[in-house]
Amino acid sequence: MTLLMLSYPERVEVFRRSFARDLPEVPFVSDATQVDPREVRYLITWNYPDDMAERYPNLDVIFSVGAGVDQMTQAPIPPGVKLVRMIESGLTSLMRDYVVMSVLALHRRLPAYIEQQRRREWINLDFTWADQRRVSVLGLGELGQASLNALKPFGFRLAGWSRSPKAIEGIRSYHGPEGLMAMLTETDILICLLPLTPETRHILNADLFAQLPRGASLVQVGRGGHLDQEALLAALNAEHLEAAFIDVTDPEPLPPHHPLWSHPKVVLTPHVAAHTRAESAAEATIANLRHILAGKAPKGLVDPQRGY
Amino acid sequence: MTLLMLSYPERVEVFRRSFARDLPEVPFVSDATQVDPREVRYLITWNYPDDMAERYPNLDVIFSVGAGVDQMTQAPIPPGVKLVRMIESGLTSLMRDYVVMSVLALHRRLPAYIEQQRRREWINLDFTWADQRRVSVLGLGELGQASLNALKPFGFRLAGWSRSPKAIEGIRSYHGPEGLMAMLTETDILICLLPLTPETRHILNADLFAQLPRGASLVQVGRGGHLDQEALLAALNAEHLEAAFIDVTDPEPLPPHHPLWSHPKVVLTPHVAAHTRAESAAEATIANLRHILAGKAPKGLVDPQRGY
Repeated sequence: MTLLMLSYPERVEVFRRSFARDLPEVPFVSDATQVDPREVRYLITWNYPDDMAERYPNLDVIFSVGAGVDQMTQAPIPPGVKLVRMIESGLTSLMRDYVVMSVLALHRRLPAYIEQQRRREWINLDFTWADQRRVSVLGLGELGQASLNALKPFGFRLAGWSRSPKAIEGIRSYHGPEGLMAMLTETDILICLLPLTPETRHILNADLFAQLPRGASLVQVGRGGHLDQEALLAALNAEHLEAAFIDVTDPEPLPPHHPLWSHPKVVLTPHVAAHTRAESAAEATIANLRHILAGKAPKGLVDPQRGY
Repeated sequence: MTLLMLSYPERVEVFRRSFARDLPEVPFVSDATQVDPREVRYLITWNYPDDMAERYPNLDVIFSVGAGVDQMTQAPIPPGVKLVRMIESGLTSLMRDYVVMSVLALHRRLPAYIEQQRRREWINLDFTWADQRRVSVLGLGELGQASLNALKPFGFRLAGWSRSPKAIEGIRSYHGPEGLMAMLTETDILICLLPLTPETRHILNADLFAQLPRGASLVQVGRGGHLDQEALLAALNAEHLEAAFIDVTDPEPLPPHHPLWSHPKVVLTPHVAAHTRAESAAEATIANLRHILAGKAPKGLVDPQRGY
């Protein structure tokens, strides 16, 4: 029952030390040539090349090193194999911090002030108090909930939407297609933290933007595939949307000629909002593997029907 | 015992309604021509022109509409007259929000990413975890403490400095000249929230920047007079400091030719970090006036020796 980890060396070393200390009974290997493929029961990896199922016939669990599993779609995962998303405190705190930064920056109109600075203009722009600002999150998983909780102390009017009903204290929660429409009409700053699935591909499109009130803004920290980039540019150019923080694009890297780079209302960062922290990810993976060894469900187990 | 408020009409109307409802026993006037100057005991104003002492011989208290009183220095305030700074929740929350936004943006290297965006470069920059990032505040008054408390959930290593010793839970606190030097050598992001006095004028100078470790950043939300702007530009150009958020300048507005406008490592906003919120300021002023009428000290009473 060997665990094989396929990742870059610095991360592997952190995992290796944690496993040696906290779960020595599970053999830990990072060189695929040094293990009998039939021995591999657990795999920690970013993606899932299409010969995995044949190469590792006794695979039981695949742990993604990332929060999403949309990159695991190159090949079908065999029916008996569990797929587990990464839920760990390091990545969660990074995303929370990026979201709070972006929301405060959009709330205080930082993109417009940066544009003013370029023009050397000293003008006090119109302003909205936080208790009049409606901030909504698409996706109420670990990252969406952590972001909403971190936004609470600032006094925003908070809402969140998910596919199925969820109750979160202090937050108006919506679900399903009707819930989405209802929430959007009452949203000034929209944050995308959805998983990428066939249902959510290009969910941030012209129809969605049209539901938002004039002057709304976007924080896009999901996956590049969520956003119809042309629709965003059109909504910004029509002054229907005021500004956007964009951390993920399609494709990545964004090609140099793409108009998002130079749009004065877009702050573009190169997919840096959040990444896995090796130390806390190793802890979370060991805790999950302990659950599995005890016959319990791991945290972040993917439902193949939902795709997350 | 009339109260005279000198401010712009929208703010005056909010105060007038609050006083009529909550403190009707104090006559409220906003037109200086409609009151016998000898009747004026309380004055709400931004500044203090030099004929005030003669014009209002029975003045007891001057309430500043702003958090600072450095703008009240055109003329000496008569020895018997109390001067009260504005401490109110609206202004405090605005400052807290701007500070959190700026600290997160400097922590996540947003100025460098904005520069990369201009060059259409998709590069993941070096990164420091929040628990390794030392954030320090100069000034532990209402605004400094609110900012530090709001930064706590993000996991930074927090410190604060004030003239006299202060203990704040979860924050390393320093005081006096030696304390300042000790704190600076352990500071990655420095926030200036000091009052402007003769002692703090140009406190943000070349000597102070030299104490900070290489790569440190600045959030300047005090007063323009705190900062030696040439020294900041030199420290940025020497790559001793990494970046700065600057909300206040000297003079204001900053002249169009000034090099701060176009410096790639400076985010410049036009003195918008915080301003008084009329509703909560009226409440705070009424509460303070009730204290005074009961013979107690108001919150924010200025010590003429300290100058704040």
